[in-house]
Amino acid sequence: MPHVNRDGVNVYYESFGQGVPIVFLHPFSTNRYIWSNQLLDFARTNRCIVSDHRGHGLSDKPASGYSISAMAADLVAILDDAGVDKAVLVGNSIGGMIAMQTNLLAPGRVLGNLILSSGTNIGADTPPEAGEAIQADWRGFFSGLLEAAVSAKSKQEKPEIQAFMEGCFRVEENFTEAVFFGSLTDPDGVFNWNISDQLKDIKAPTMIIAGAEDGATTVEVNQFLADNIPNANIKIYKDVAHFCQLEKPTDFNADLRNFLAKVA
Amino acid sequence: MPHVNRDGVNVYYESFGQGVPIVFLHPFSTNRYIWSNQLLDFARTNRCIVSDHRGHGLSDKPASGYSISAMAADLVAILDDAGVDKAVLVGNSIGGMIAMQTNLLAPGRVLGNLILSSGTNIGADTPPEAGEAIQADWRGFFSGLLEAAVSAKSKQEKPEIQAFMEGCFRVEENFTEAVFFGSLTDPDGVFNWNISDQLKDIKAPTMIIAGAEDGATTVEVNQFLADNIPNANIKIYKDVAHFCQLEKPTDFNADLRNFLAKVA
Repeated sequence: MPHVNRDGVNVYYESFGQGVPIVFLHPFSTNRYIWSNQLLDFARTNRCIVSDHRGHGLSDKPASGYSISAMAADLVAILDDAGVDKAVLVGNSIGGMIAMQTNLLAPGRVLGNLILSSGTNIGADTPPEAGEAIQADWRGFFSGLLEAAVSAKSKQEKPEIQAFMEGCFRVEENFTEAVFFGSLTDPDGVFNWNISDQLKDIKAPTMIIAGAEDGATTVEVNQFLADNIPNANIKIYKDVAHFCQLEKPTDFNADLRNFLAKVA
Repeated sequence: MPHVNRDGVNVYYESFGQGVPIVFLHPFSTNRYIWSNQLLDFARTNRCIVSDHRGHGLSDKPASGYSISAMAADLVAILDDAGVDKAVLVGNSIGGMIAMQTNLLAPGRVLGNLILSSGTNIGADTPPEAGEAIQADWRGFFSGLLEAAVSAKSKQEKPEIQAFMEGCFRVEENFTEAVFFGSLTDPDGVFNWNISDQLKDIKAPTMIIAGAEDGATTVEVNQFLADNIPNANIKIYKDVAHFCQLEKPTDFNADLRNFLAKVA
């Protein structure tokens, strides 16, 4: 079964379909199942690759090494292993960070970026009390964050979204406490990673999608990406928070198809 | 990565969580991604196993050998490989058939069955012209069948369900023409399999869930199971067709939790 070994860490991925490659990059603490509304649908017209980032799902979970740079290097290793020269990167939250970092690491491999609800330097405004709450009960803290990451409408109409997310960070086989703190404390990890000054170096066509109700990566945080990546535009969804691919999958898929038509 | 080799065929599976084991068995032509609303949610409280049946997804796709008995034997091999003595089987459509056959093959391994939109001898009423339509354009025929397998409400509110299904049988890496015809022509395959006279021998507690709008396996076909399996009851969902786990995931999950509380 497909995986790539980089630097002693097995990273799991799957590939379905033929055509212009798309790589789907999931949010922190989740796994490739978040793309179930996209994977087989887009595999009709594209080669679709989904992976579990190191520390997640079926990939290895070492004690440390959770920098965004490491995950971007893993992605390049997946592209190499899969024989993919260039791909469209679709990244949600930390997945968007991995996509952006890959643009800096290996710009020649990127056809375009669809960045869904992401940001850079997202831990900058974290109040000191959050740190204490995290130390006391990181899963409880994460549940609270999740409350702000799903829209009111989605909570009412699709409670399965929160149930999926809660499962992701409460099931040891998918995501562990060590991975959480390894990521939290990494100087280049999800909350510390800051490429504000390098966004200008991302040259590939980029579409940012943000959710108006997103309390995890706000519209402002996403707008900062759109304002600083040279070839970027932004679309803001009503009644959506952090997970447009689950909250409004058909609309999200239409946006991705339009984006693909422009860049590939 | 986890797979079991039985009779020269690699069958892929994944396991998340700890607790009373549940095995989720997907419909014909699809794959384990159909359980994305269940897998991580139930893994909080149970050991959840998802597999791709032979001929599907990441499992091998030999030219023939697509009897329900073969797939039930694959399931027992997965249980052995995973170190699972007994499990609750949750099967949709062909997945329900595999579950029922496993009750006959290895009754001691089954704690209970949740059979979602399934049946036995389902090809019996197929008109002769269907055979011609299948030969001429099996994917077109299957699209037509799919039209009758998703409720009007689901089509309107969740068009991603049909998009997922269409992708499943149109993406060669997931499901091939050879698998379709190998299954169709197998004397014990999905459309020919008939255990009408053996339903009485299924002793495990069984819940049947049927969709009122299901044109693929009608309420009557599901009612026949409930009437002939000794320890079975049936629940019929309004506004649902063949895929309750996608069409009404939260209600379906509540039913599964209630069923688990009774049998495990």
